[in-house]
Amino acid sequence: MQKRIAVYPGSFDPITYGHINLVKRAAERFEKLNVVIMNNSEKRCLFTLEERVEMTKANLSHIPNVEIDTFSGLLVQYCKLKDISTVIRGLRAVTDFEYELQMANGNRSLMPQLEIFFLMSDVAHSFISSSMVKEVARYDGDVSTWVSPLVEKKLKEKFKKN
Amino acid sequence: MQKRIAVYPGSFDPITYGHINLVKRAAERFEKLNVVIMNNSEKRCLFTLEERVEMTKANLSHIPNVEIDTFSGLLVQYCKLKDISTVIRGLRAVTDFEYELQMANGNRSLMPQLEIFFLMSDVAHSFISSSMVKEVARYDGDVSTWVSPLVEKKLKEKFKKN
Amino acid sequence: MQKRIAVYPGSFDPITYGHINLVKRAAERFEKLNVVIMNNSEKRCLFTLEERVEMTKANLSHIPNVEIDTFSGLLVQYCKLKDISTVIRGLRAVTDFEYELQMANGNRSLMPQLEIFFLMSDVAHSFISSSMVKEVARYDGDVSTWVSPLVEKKLKEKFKKN
Amino acid sequence: MQKRIAVYPGSFDPITYGHINLVKRAAERFEKLNVVIMNNSEKRCLFTLEERVEMTKANLSHIPNVEIDTFSGLLVQYCKLKDISTVIRGLRAVTDFEYELQMANGNRSLMPQLEIFFLMSDVAHSFISSSMVKEVARYDGDVSTWVSPLVEKKLKEKFKKN
Amino acid sequence: MQKRIAVYPGSFDPITYGHINLVKRAAERFEKLNVVIMNNSEKRCLFTLEERVEMTKANLSHIPNVEIDTFSGLLVQYCKLKDISTVIRGLRAVTDFEYELQMANGNRSLMPQLEIFFLMSDVAHSFISSSMVKEVARYDGDVSTWVSPLVEKKLKEKFKKN
Amino acid sequence: MQKRIAVYPGSFDPITYGHINLVKRAAERFEKLNVVIMNNSEKRCLFTLEERVEMTKANLSHIPNVEIDTFSGLLVQYCKLKDISTVIRGLRAVTDFEYELQMANGNRSLMPQLEIFFLMSDVAHSFISSSMVKEVARYDGDVSTWVSPLVEKKLKEKFKKN
Repeated sequence: MQKRIAVYPGSFDPITYGHINLVKRAAERFEKLNVVIMNNSEKRCLFTLEERVEMTKANLSHIPNVEIDTFSGLLVQYCKLKDISTVIRGLRAVTDFEYELQMANGNRSLMPQLEIFFLMSDVAHSFISSSMVKEVARYDGDVSTWVSPLVEKKLKEKFKKN
Repeated sequence: MQKRIAVYPGSFDPITYGHINLVKRAAERFEKLNVVIMNNSEKRCLFTLEERVEMTKANLSHIPNVEIDTFSGLLVQYCKLKDISTVIRGLRAVTDFEYELQMANGNRSLMPQLEIFFLMSDVAHSFISSSMVKEVARYDGDVSTWVSPLVEKKLKEKFKKN
Repeated sequence: MQKRIAVYPGSFDPITYGHINLVKRAAERFEKLNVVIMNNSEKRCLFTLEERVEMTKANLSHIPNVEIDTFSGLLVQYCKLKDISTVIRGLRAVTDFEYELQMANGNRSLMPQLEIFFLMSDVAHSFISSSMVKEVARYDGDVSTWVSPLVEKKLKEKFKKN
Repeated sequence: MQKRIAVYPGSFDPITYGHINLVKRAAERFEKLNVVIMNNSEKRCLFTLEERVEMTKANLSHIPNVEIDTFSGLLVQYCKLKDISTVIRGLRAVTDFEYELQMANGNRSLMPQLEIFFLMSDVAHSFISSSMVKEVARYDGDVSTWVSPLVEKKLKEKFKKN
Repeated sequence: MQKRIAVYPGSFDPITYGHINLVKRAAERFEKLNVVIMNNSEKRCLFTLEERVEMTKANLSHIPNVEIDTFSGLLVQYCKLKDISTVIRGLRAVTDFEYELQMANGNRSLMPQLEIFFLMSDVAHSFISSSMVKEVARYDGDVSTWVSPLVEKKLKEKFKKN
Repeated sequence: MQKRIAVYPGSFDPITYGHINLVKRAAERFEKLNVVIMNNSEKRCLFTLEERVEMTKANLSHIPNVEIDTFSGLLVQYCKLKDISTVIRGLRAVTDFEYELQMANGNRSLMPQLEIFFLMSDVAHSFISSSMVKEVARYDGDVSTWVSPLVEKKLKEKFKKN
């Protein structure tokens, strides 16, 4: 199993500067980083899978060793399919930590050779979340320091349509 | 910007003795306290905005320097509109703390002059939440030590109708 | 009020090896343990009450002093009805703890003679939750180390039907 | 192994109304409760073992099925010696929870048949700790709502002497 | 009791940019802010009370409505002596929160009219603590972004002497 | 700066099976892993630096790409000296998380190119800590499932001597 490729999974609904910072940092430590946009039916997203792929690609195109992928299913199923055993996850707060600990234990119980590396969010991005971005954008608040101009534009379009 | 007026925002769905205790304590430290009932479409409330205003007004009428207001939008938009830069929030538990920390950082990123003062819930009210009140009232449990007789009556009516 | 009978309430949607471990441990310390499947309309379950009763009964039939019961209403209403004043709850993580602390205080405010004993989850079962089981089973992942063969079968049927 | 006797271990340096409340509640659910004052050299106490025994005995004499004991060593060694497999511990806060979880897992690894029941502190006693009592008493603050008159008197003598 | 004066107590061993940020923010909301350097024998400080007063005064001299004071005793004793009933405390993390909650409840039990306002640390200062400053300075690490040049100089002198 | 070498710093007082599990997992993902025993005067250790080196070397000799090193000073000073920018840390509980978050932010403020990867402790080792090992060994409790036979022997010698 290849150990120099890592997976960074998420919903990216939408991608924020917090995600971008984490991808940049993780990509420096691995030969290749697969950013995987999970497409699970039971989680309602604001953006369609295609929109999320478009924004994520545009926002990460400047990092050479990053590949954007999509997957419907479990993280361990993706890892087994791609023969990858290293996962990257971000940690912001204690509630993140508890959820991630449970998921990490669950995933390693399903796939013992899986290893999950956690990175602490940068101080400046520690409070940014996709949900907060959406809540503020819904009321036409200023999200320009949290997401890229492209994502800001897409959020405006989305909330005008609705 | 006026510094002797503070805002205490919330859903008040419905107002509990925990809210009343906090308002009383906060009102003593400011010239005026604006209790603002947020009316945000994505949060489903049991009571209509009008019902929440009625109950909140009735329950706080004995505190002279309190004004009840309503708002649809972001907290920082209300503060800018009213030229107020001080917000009061209650803290009961660690999960409250993490959410409030994220919100405080988000709000101060949107409006740097904003200041948020957190008050710890009184020991006797530390476990009361509007959700628990509703859950107990739904099954005709006794909520008389958590909410005023008016709110108790309104809860009974609401759950009979449904 | 009888003090040698205890209640272990939950949704059991579905019952996991974590629940079974806890029931076994609690049943050893009491004359009788009432495992009560709560049937509250506002909580959406994957399995019907009948399915949950069937799986729970099958999984706990080897423990002699356990009785399976169902109830629609508040825990304290069940306790008063059955004249029982001891409740057993499991604790896995900090977020569990905070929720349980609030519930315990709320319940003891409604019924002062109620006593709630918390048991820490066994290390090996500390990360298993009914929600994780359902999420993994939905994508046909392997849940055989978390639930009994019967529950595994029922999960497969459920997700094929849907 | 006898299952109707439980152990409540602690330093009791000194015993507070929080301890007394917990002992009373636990004693109602067991035939006998052994309150064990641990005497471990590496933990510096304000009161000698004799003083702690005296105060604890005086404060718990009104509860018939409580016995005061002392022990130098590990909790599991005491339990094995006395053929007891049930331990009672109080939980006040999240930091308590994490420490207790580690200890519970450690102790059950040393003695698998051990069971630890956790009780949440009563709301009114949730913030009282022996350390806070000592800190306040050191500066002649009023501790009369946290400890009995006897303990208050002993604290005064102790801080006068020093 | 005067409600427009607040107390900000601490050890200030030594004062950091985190403290300075909090004092500046709190001083804007009150007519006067008493920064009180607590001098309690049982807490071992690196700097003497005189050194802490000197550094704190020098670092806060640019904020007009701040007064530096010292006190040996309990916070509530200082508040009663000065006829002040408002206290300001900073919150950085969950462990801070739990300790502060216990202290707040303890202090309000000793002085019911006391009110404690908590401010969340600024994102940029959220990880700075006096202990970390001392640990890094002890090994001649760079603390220039965490404390003022004066404090940096004093730390260097202190660790050369020792 | 080399990115395929990582540092795993700690006191290792003494090394436990929890440490060994983490080293094994981390060593699989890097070309080389420097296990660094920090020797800081202000932290009192049970074992001397020499004893800790001896036990750590013996316990990790079966992992080929691990090197044992020692250092007196700050972690970032070691990293700069060795031209290493990747650090590995274990996470067991929420209190670990908060301390590590503060340290990570402090260290990255001192050395921005530093990256810290956190690994969650294995379920089976999640409750083992060097302090618990020492506490149990002090009273001649059984630590054989937590540390290697060599460390167990050394602990016995240490507590006989004292």
